Amino acid sequence: MTYCVGLKLDRGLVFAADTRTNAGLDNIATFKKLHVWEERGDRVITLLSAGNLAVTQAVISILSEHINTAPEGRPTLMSVDTMFQAARLVGSAVREVRAIDGEALNANADNFFVTFILGGQIKGEEPRLFQIYSAGNFIEVGQDTPFLQIGEHKYGKPILDRVARPDMRLGEGAKMILLSFDSTLRSNLSVGMPIDLLLYNKDSFSAERQLRIQQDDPYFQKLSKGWSDALRDAFTDMDPLDV
Amino acid sequence: MTYCVGLKLDRGLVFAADTRTNAGLDNIATFKKLHVWEERGDRVITLLSAGNLAVTQAVISILSEHINTAPEGRPTLMSVDTMFQAARLVGSAVREVRAIDGEALNANADNFFVTFILGGQIKGEEPRLFQIYSAGNFIEVGQDTPFLQIGEHKYGKPILDRVARPDMRLGEGAKMILLSFDSTLRSNLSVGMPIDLLLYNKDSFSAERQLRIQQDDPYFQKLSKGWSDALRDAFTDMDPLDV
Repeated sequence: MTYCVGLKLDRGLVFAADTRTNAGLDNIATFKKLHVWEERGDRVITLLSAGNLAVTQAVISILSEHINTAPEGRPTLMSVDTMFQAARLVGSAVREVRAIDGEALNANADNFFVTFILGGQIKGEEPRLFQIYSAGNFIEVGQDTPFLQIGEHKYGKPILDRVARPDMRLGEGAKMILLSFDSTLRSNLSVGMPIDLLLYNKDSFSAERQLRIQQDDPYFQKLSKGWSDALRDAFTDMDPLDV
Repeated sequence: MTYCVGLKLDRGLVFAADTRTNAGLDNIATFKKLHVWEERGDRVITLLSAGNLAVTQAVISILSEHINTAPEGRPTLMSVDTMFQAARLVGSAVREVRAIDGEALNANADNFFVTFILGGQIKGEEPRLFQIYSAGNFIEVGQDTPFLQIGEHKYGKPILDRVARPDMRLGEGAKMILLSFDSTLRSNLSVGMPIDLLLYNKDSFSAERQLRIQQDDPYFQKLSKGWSDALRDAFTDMDPLDV
């Protein structure tokens, strides 16, 4: 499994992805699921992936290779003018991988299942955030729900539902997302540390605010413990049910 | 969908079930999923159900009818000596329904899927808590994890993981379960009010502490709002991520 979140705020975008992959419970490994394409001053494009690792890696490889090898005039992530066109490129890459591997996966009773969160900003546009499905089609985040989740989304959704607001600062958004990860990590073994994070400031066209949060990260440990304590205190302060 | 919780505490048992059933999102209804068999002074047996409503109702009907119509010497929920035997009766009823309806359900591409939480106390034993599967087999709660969930369990699990302790009072346990329901109700439309609750005091052999919590219940509304406010305050008090 996997857990990734994309958040669209007034001030920019926040992305987070865990790094655990597993083929069965007895075969786990660490793989990066947060991928960034950047041209300083012009664009930052981020892709978070969940699903079959061979498929997601193939999609990423196609997108990356095309940047250098695509024939003149064929659009790439570094040449498209809008994030909508970038989302279509990702969708096309998904369909290309299905055309190559889909039949063999079916024959092996494996699922062709992937989802992506794509977000970023290209000069001339506002920051945008998309979710791309196995079929290669996609949706874009509007005003009403500022976040997208892929993978094991349920454990960490209540905190997002309660707290997420478009006018949050990026650091507040990252804090909220880390609490959402904390709940997920406690409940689902197939989501694991470290967590990759990217905070993208609107109109910065720079992906410099990236970090990897390890298990022993002091901020994350303090956050996790502080949240547990605060929840327990809040719980204790409320009246029990009297029947 | 459905959400039910059973909690085994040192002082007794707490049960809760929502009441929403749905056949598709456009056909929802209210059905009781918390069933109690009681003989004051001798036993209280509670069954919470999730899954195909026709199947769960058939199981409940078999268990109830047998109490009056079973031939002499055949065990019923009112005659068995232990909760383990009660769990086996429920398992047998599940297998009986599968024998009757399973083939037709399969032919209709419907799943034969049910799960039950069974708990209670029979004189001579401690209170016990079981989960019973579609195959009719079951597990019993031990010391390490005091709660069971069936149905849409993920949204409401973090609060249980953080707060549940065997030495809680029943009213505290009920409060915790209602907060778990609150998170679930916010995130999943297929779980709906009212919520049925039973608080069973160890060695009381009485099911009198039952209530149904409606949408406009003042205690639940206060709890829900208080929890939201406390979480938001706790969130605000913590330092944002600084990258």
